[in-house]
Amino acid sequence: MTPPLPPGATIGILGTGQLGRMLAGAAAKLGFRVATFGPESDPPAARVADCHHIADYNDHEALQRFAKTVDAATFEFENIAASTVKAVADAGTSVRPGPRVLAVCQDRVAEKDYLRSLGVATAPYKAIDGMKSLRAAVCDIGVPAILKSRRFGYDGKGQYRIESETDLEAALNAVGSEGILEGFVRFEGEFSQIAGRGTDGSIVFFDCPENRHEGGILRESRIPCAAPDALVAQARTVTQSMLEDLDYTGVIAVEYFWSSDDGLIANEIAPRVHNSGHWTVEACRTSQFEVHIRAVAGWPLGDPSRHSDAVMTNLIGDETLEWQKLVGNPDLSVTLYGKRDCRPGRKMGHTTQLLRPAMLQPS
Amino acid sequence: MTPPLPPGATIGILGTGQLGRMLAGAAAKLGFRVATFGPESDPPAARVADCHHIADYNDHEALQRFAKTVDAATFEFENIAASTVKAVADAGTSVRPGPRVLAVCQDRVAEKDYLRSLGVATAPYKAIDGMKSLRAAVCDIGVPAILKSRRFGYDGKGQYRIESETDLEAALNAVGSEGILEGFVRFEGEFSQIAGRGTDGSIVFFDCPENRHEGGILRESRIPCAAPDALVAQARTVTQSMLEDLDYTGVIAVEYFWSSDDGLIANEIAPRVHNSGHWTVEACRTSQFEVHIRAVAGWPLGDPSRHSDAVMTNLIGDETLEWQKLVGNPDLSVTLYGKRDCRPGRKMGHTTQLLRPAMLQPS
Repeated sequence: MTPPLPPGATIGILGTGQLGRMLAGAAAKLGFRVATFGPESDPPAARVADCHHIADYNDHEALQRFAKTVDAATFEFENIAASTVKAVADAGTSVRPGPRVLAVCQDRVAEKDYLRSLGVATAPYKAIDGMKSLRAAVCDIGVPAILKSRRFGYDGKGQYRIESETDLEAALNAVGSEGILEGFVRFEGEFSQIAGRGTDGSIVFFDCPENRHEGGILRESRIPCAAPDALVAQARTVTQSMLEDLDYTGVIAVEYFWSSDDGLIANEIAPRVHNSGHWTVEACRTSQFEVHIRAVAGWPLGDPSRHSDAVMTNLIGDETLEWQKLVGNPDLSVTLYGKRDCRPGRKMGHTTQLLRPAMLQPS
Repeated sequence: MTPPLPPGATIGILGTGQLGRMLAGAAAKLGFRVATFGPESDPPAARVADCHHIADYNDHEALQRFAKTVDAATFEFENIAASTVKAVADAGTSVRPGPRVLAVCQDRVAEKDYLRSLGVATAPYKAIDGMKSLRAAVCDIGVPAILKSRRFGYDGKGQYRIESETDLEAALNAVGSEGILEGFVRFEGEFSQIAGRGTDGSIVFFDCPENRHEGGILRESRIPCAAPDALVAQARTVTQSMLEDLDYTGVIAVEYFWSSDDGLIANEIAPRVHNSGHWTVEACRTSQFEVHIRAVAGWPLGDPSRHSDAVMTNLIGDETLEWQKLVGNPDLSVTLYGKRDCRPGRKMGHTTQLLRPAMLQPS
């Protein structure tokens, strides 16, 4: 085990959006310096960091220069190229979490296989490598179903909803031939388990928020969630197995669906701080951002317990044009990401409302 | 009334220590850019700001350049020269709070006179302009007493404790001829009233922390405080009168002593966020830093109510060398200021412990 980073050390963040920005704030609270890395000249995270390296993620020379100025590194997005992480690690700088979880998360088939290997159900899925396998998969899974690209790099290949046999060719054209066909699952609710693991193997769990999506984008996370205790406990067990199996360092988020009939269905792994955990800043003794930085620094993780019930609401696209109304509502803690352009579907900020003191729960 | 600053506007902070650093964090949360100004090249606040102007506080050209890049300005320390504030204001940039409160706070005699004019008691005091007036003041106030310089600029003239007639010459030599002699007061406790006032005249009050000093430095602030309700209510009334009389914008802190026999005794006014309010970050719905930034931006002030009881403990001098022990205690939220040199008496960080949910109180 490497020794913990002392205050004053520099933490490097690959990625410069709102997650990097809030990670940088948590790092500063603990006395760390922060260096960010990304291709934009004036992104949200860089404005609160000590130092910003402007370069493409595949500029290995720039990555090595960055690596030499930081004592440990992390990333804010899971579709970071393995070669980017490797360039930093090759310069002798620990990247936390490491490449192992990225190999799982960057391949939707590997991710689903991995979740099932941990003993949790997923939506029905089949790997696709062309028309023949797609036809067979649709036959097996049924319609409607979604064809997704297997890997999601910077090019961000789309998704295609298949309603009938006549959609197959268009779907393959849109998504490419390396894909995954996913069936739909019925569910009563969705929640996420956000947890952190330290370099010493210690694990902390945040209480699970209930999430509500609209148009594929998280709209609201509410805590506590309505899922039955037994399913939340199962999610915690799955998440813990994953953290230990991957020898993971940092915060992870695992999204789950649940229904009374079908129990727990794991959906997705995010090897990073997560939008559904933003309420932890206001409602927990230690936020997800601070837990992650503590883990990256090799520190004890702190106390993630929740002092208040809360609801977090995303501000999407032009909703922040209403900022005067939002900041005039004393019930809301408003966080704005400082993005200059508000495009439809873009996350621009969020609000957290503390609802009431949390009931003490056995843990 | 000037219109509120939109998110994305730049707030300028004169001063670059821990108060500026925490103000910058609060400004970033609300989507503002931050520019700092101060003579050091790598101070704590600059590391979390967009932009740092390195110049002396009496460099008026640099101040004007700074002023032109910011939409509103504030300061983190009250012994800022009136000419510094004027240089920024002359460039057309609002400085909040304004020069009026500085005129009161920068002259210890004017400060005491002003407090008395608001109907609150102070320690006994006399203005001193040489040996004759000092001798008369000691005769009047008695010993022990403290001779302090009337003004406290960057040169930081000291204080001298007078125990007997034989100390007078040494005291004048140490402090200079423009001074104030202050008598001691008996007190059972000390607390501060931190409050904020918006550009629209709205006022919010934080609950009063009980403060404990050691060797002239704040050691601990604990909330709620033990002072009788009637005295806390009186402190609130005095503070409110002050904010209104000064047409103040921003957060102010007023320190009070109290005793059952002598009631409320006002000690000092700090026209800024205050060390005794650091617990508001963890324990209140809106922190003192955010309330101040909201006021400077012309925004509504938010809800300062406290969800938890708390105790804040300063980390002074080499106490942060114990950082591993501190960050290993899950009961503590640790904030480190990123100062490189830990000198005796220097504030290096603080911890906040949430104790229990706050009792709901009539407000």
